[in-house]
Amino acid sequence: MALTPYQQLEQEFRRLHAFHGALSLLRWDAAVMMPRGSADVRGEQLAALETEHHALLTTPRIARLLERAEAGAAQLDDWPLANLREMRRQRDHAIATPPSLIARLARTSARAEVYWVEARKANDFKVFAPHLEELVHLVRDKAALLGQARGLAPYDALVDVYTPGISTADIDAIFKSLSHKLPGLIHQVIELQAVRPPSPIVGKFSISRQRQLAVEVLKSLGFPFDRGRLDESEHPFTEGVPGDMRVTTRFDAADPFTGLLGAVHETGHAMYDLGLPQQWRDQPVGRDRGLALEESQSLLFEMNLCRSRPFVKYLRPLLEKYLQVSTPEWREENLYRHLIHVRRSLIRMDADELTYPVHIMVRYELEKRLLDGSLAVVDLPEAWNEALDQRLGLRPGSDLEGCLQDIHWSVGHFGYFPSYALGAVIAGQMYEALRAARPSLDEEIAAGSFAGVLEWLRDHVHGVGARLPVKDLIQEATGKPLSAAAYLRYLENKYLEAG
Amino acid sequence: MALTPYQQLEQEFRRLHAFHGALSLLRWDAAVMMPRGSADVRGEQLAALETEHHALLTTPRIARLLERAEAGAAQLDDWPLANLREMRRQRDHAIATPPSLIARLARTSARAEVYWVEARKANDFKVFAPHLEELVHLVRDKAALLGQARGLAPYDALVDVYTPGISTADIDAIFKSLSHKLPGLIHQVIELQAVRPPSPIVGKFSISRQRQLAVEVLKSLGFPFDRGRLDESEHPFTEGVPGDMRVTTRFDAADPFTGLLGAVHETGHAMYDLGLPQQWRDQPVGRDRGLALEESQSLLFEMNLCRSRPFVKYLRPLLEKYLQVSTPEWREENLYRHLIHVRRSLIRMDADELTYPVHIMVRYELEKRLLDGSLAVVDLPEAWNEALDQRLGLRPGSDLEGCLQDIHWSVGHFGYFPSYALGAVIAGQMYEALRAARPSLDEEIAAGSFAGVLEWLRDHVHGVGARLPVKDLIQEATGKPLSAAAYLRYLENKYLEAG
Repeated sequence: MALTPYQQLEQEFRRLHAFHGALSLLRWDAAVMMPRGSADVRGEQLAALETEHHALLTTPRIARLLERAEAGAAQLDDWPLANLREMRRQRDHAIATPPSLIARLARTSARAEVYWVEARKANDFKVFAPHLEELVHLVRDKAALLGQARGLAPYDALVDVYTPGISTADIDAIFKSLSHKLPGLIHQVIELQAVRPPSPIVGKFSISRQRQLAVEVLKSLGFPFDRGRLDESEHPFTEGVPGDMRVTTRFDAADPFTGLLGAVHETGHAMYDLGLPQQWRDQPVGRDRGLALEESQSLLFEMNLCRSRPFVKYLRPLLEKYLQVSTPEWREENLYRHLIHVRRSLIRMDADELTYPVHIMVRYELEKRLLDGSLAVVDLPEAWNEALDQRLGLRPGSDLEGCLQDIHWSVGHFGYFPSYALGAVIAGQMYEALRAARPSLDEEIAAGSFAGVLEWLRDHVHGVGARLPVKDLIQEATGKPLSAAAYLRYLENKYLEAG
Repeated sequence: MALTPYQQLEQEFRRLHAFHGALSLLRWDAAVMMPRGSADVRGEQLAALETEHHALLTTPRIARLLERAEAGAAQLDDWPLANLREMRRQRDHAIATPPSLIARLARTSARAEVYWVEARKANDFKVFAPHLEELVHLVRDKAALLGQARGLAPYDALVDVYTPGISTADIDAIFKSLSHKLPGLIHQVIELQAVRPPSPIVGKFSISRQRQLAVEVLKSLGFPFDRGRLDESEHPFTEGVPGDMRVTTRFDAADPFTGLLGAVHETGHAMYDLGLPQQWRDQPVGRDRGLALEESQSLLFEMNLCRSRPFVKYLRPLLEKYLQVSTPEWREENLYRHLIHVRRSLIRMDADELTYPVHIMVRYELEKRLLDGSLAVVDLPEAWNEALDQRLGLRPGSDLEGCLQDIHWSVGHFGYFPSYALGAVIAGQMYEALRAARPSLDEEIAAGSFAGVLEWLRDHVHGVGARLPVKDLIQEATGKPLSAAAYLRYLENKYLEAG
C-alpha cells in the first residue's frame, strides 16, 4: 500500500532524527573524549552533517509533502497532527535563513568566539567589540527573516527558536513580577542569613569518591546507566538522544557540592529527554518542548528537589559513606544552610538561586537594546555595569566581571538567556503542583525515592513531548496559566523560613 | 571562476570523507564508550549515515562529473589522476550492488551474527548453518555483480573490495610458497624450541600500570596523543581518520604482553593512517591502500620490529619500571624466547607468527569452495577439521574450536581473510628493504627510537596513499615484485637462529 504524504514525512524525519543523534554524539565526543589536536577534523565533520541535515530538511520534496499532508490534516489524530505542525515549524525555520546568511553567521561567530577569548585574556572589551558589532548586524538580519517567516516580531522570532510559544510580552510580564519582588527579598534574606551564617565546609575530597557518590545519587534519581553515561568536562552539559543520554559534570577537589549538583542538574535534563514519548522518539513531536522547559526540569531537580531539607537528609549518610566526613559542619542543618546560602555576586555562573534571575534580566534588557539599535555595541560595558549596579547594587570592576563573562553572544546566541529565568519560574510552578499531587513528597525525597516524582513528570510534562504549545503544557500540567506567582511563593517560603 | 568537473568531484568527496569520519567515530564509540542498552539507537544512526553516504556517492551528478573529468583526464597531474581513478572505483563499487541486495545482506548478516553467537553457546554448527547458507547465496550474487562491474572473476571481485589490485592468482602463488615451506619450518622450530623452552612468566600485573607502560611505548613508536587515544575494548581495533586516530587494546592481568602488543599492533595501523599524504587526506587517493597493506603495517610493528631482540632490550627496563619485575625469567633472553614461542593451536586468534598463515590458508580454500558451490555449507565442519588436520596436524574436538571460531563469515565478510596472510608477507618484504636502507635499525630500536623507521615508511609506503596500485607500491618501496621470498627468509632467520 502506498504511504500517505504524512507517512512519507515520518520516514524523512526519522532519517533527520538519526542525523540529529549522530551530531549530538560528535559534539559530546568533542567535549569529553576527543584529543586536543583534532578540533579541525571534527569541525569538518560537524559542518558536513549539519549542511546535509539542512539540505534534507529543505528539499522541495519536503515542502510538497507538507502541503499535501496539511491539505489532508482533518484525517489526522492529535499526535500526528501535532507532529505535522512541528515538522512545518522545523522546515520553516530552516528555510527562512538563506544558506549564505547561515554561512556568514557561522564564520563570523567562529571568529568572534576567538576574539572573545582574546578579549578575556586582555580583559579588554575593545578587542571583541568589532566582532560583536558584525554579529549583531547578522543576527538582526536573521531575526527579521525568521520573524517574517513565522509572523513574529524580530526578537520574538529569536526567542521562538529556543522556546517556541513564548513571546516578549510573556517574558515582560514575568520579569516585571520578578523585578518587583526579588530585590527586596534578596535584601531581606541576606540580612536574615547573616544572623546565623553556615559554618564553612573545607577539605580536600577525592574526585574518584565524589564520582562514586554522584553515581549513587544519579541512580536514586532514576538515571539509567545502561542507557546513559556520566563523564567529566570543562562545563557540565547534556547531549544525546532518548536511547543514549550523556551527562557531564566537573568535580572540584575543594568542594564536594558543585560536581554533585552539576550532575543532578544535568540529570534533570536527561530525565526529561528519557521520559519523552517512546513511540514518537524519532519524530519532531517526540522532542522536548524547548529550552525554557528543558531548564525547568534541570532546575526542578537541582534547586527545588535537591537544594532542600529532605534531600540533605538523604544525602548526609552518603557524604559520610563516600567522603568519610562527620564533623559538626556536616550536620544536616548546616549543610542545608550551606546549599541555600545567598550572596550578591558579579558572575552569573556563580550566582545562587535567588540572585540568578537578576543576572538574566540584565542580559535580556541589553540584548533587546543591542538588536533594536537603541544601544550601540561600544556602549555595552557601561550599560552593563550600570544595569547590574542598579539591579543588584554591585558594580563590575572590569569587563571580565562584566559584559565579557558569557560566551552566548560571541557564538550568536541571542534570545537564549531568558530561557534560564523562565525555566526557574516554570520549575517553581511545577513544584507547587507536584507537592499538591504528592503530599508525601518530602518523605519520598528524604528516602532517596524519586519514582513518584518521575511518574508525575512523565504523566504531566515529559510524556507530552512537543504535542502542546509550551503555555498549554504548563496550564495542563499545573492547572494554572504560566505566571511567576508560584515561583515567588516558593522562594519566599524557602528563604524566609530558613533564617 | 567556475570549478572544473574534477574540482567539483573533489568537493563532493570531501563531504563523503566527513561522513566516513563521522561513521568511524560512531563505531568507535559503540565499541568503547556506548552504554550497553543503546545499540538500537546507534544502529539507526549508522544505517542512516551509511545510506546517505551511499546515496551521495551514487547520484547521477557524480556519474556525470566522473565522465566529464575522465574526458579531460589528459590535463591532470599524477595525484589528481590517481584520485580520479579511486573516485571511479568507489562509485563503481557502490553502484554495482543494488540497494535491495545491500539491504538483504545487512538484514541477513545481522541475523546470522545472532545465530552465530547462539551456535557458539550451544557449540552446535547446525544452529548457524541455515543462516550461513542464506548469506553464502547473497554474497555469491554480490560477487557476481561486483565482478561484472569491475571486470573480475567473482571471488577476485570480493578480494578487490578489501585489497584492490590483488588477484586470486597472486594469492595462489604466494600461498603455494608458504604451503611448500611452512609445515617443515614449523616442525623444525618446535623441535628446536623444545630443547630450551622459555621459563614461564607468571604473576598478576596491575592493569593501570600496564596501561602506563603501553602509553610510554606508544609514545616511543611516535603515536601522537594530541591527535589520538588509547582505550580498552573487547577486541583491539583502530578507528578514526588521520587527524583523530583511536586505537584500543585489551589488557590481561595475568599476561603483561597481550595488551601491550595488541596496542603496538593497532599503532602500526594508526601510524599508517597518520602518515597518509596530508594534502589529500579528505580525498580517495589520500586513503590507505587496502587491508593487506594495513595489515602489513600493524604486523611490521608487532612482529618484525617488536617481537625482536632489540625491542626486548628497550622494553626490559620499562617492564622493571612499571611492573617492578626483575627475577631471572624477566631477563632479555627469556623474554625474547617467550615472545617468539611457537606452538600449534586450534584457534587463529591465539596463533603465533609462524602458524598463523596456516589458519588463513585453510579459510581461504574453504571460502572459495563455499562460494563456487563445490563445498556445501552442511559439510563445512568436516572439511574444516580435515583441512586443519592435514595442514597443521591438529583436529578440532568441536565446532567451537573449528569453523565457529571466527565472526567474519557470519557478518558477510568473504574475501577478507587472505589480507591477514598477505599482510605478513608484505611486512616481511618491507622489513628486508627497511633493514637494507637503515643499517643501524637494531640499535635504533634497542634505544626506543622509531623516527628513522617512520621516515622510511612515510617516504615509501604511508605517504603514497592510494596513488599506486598495491603491487606497484610494493615494487617501488622494496625494489622487488611482491613475493613470499623475503618473508620466508625473515622467518627462517628469526626462528632457526633463536633455537
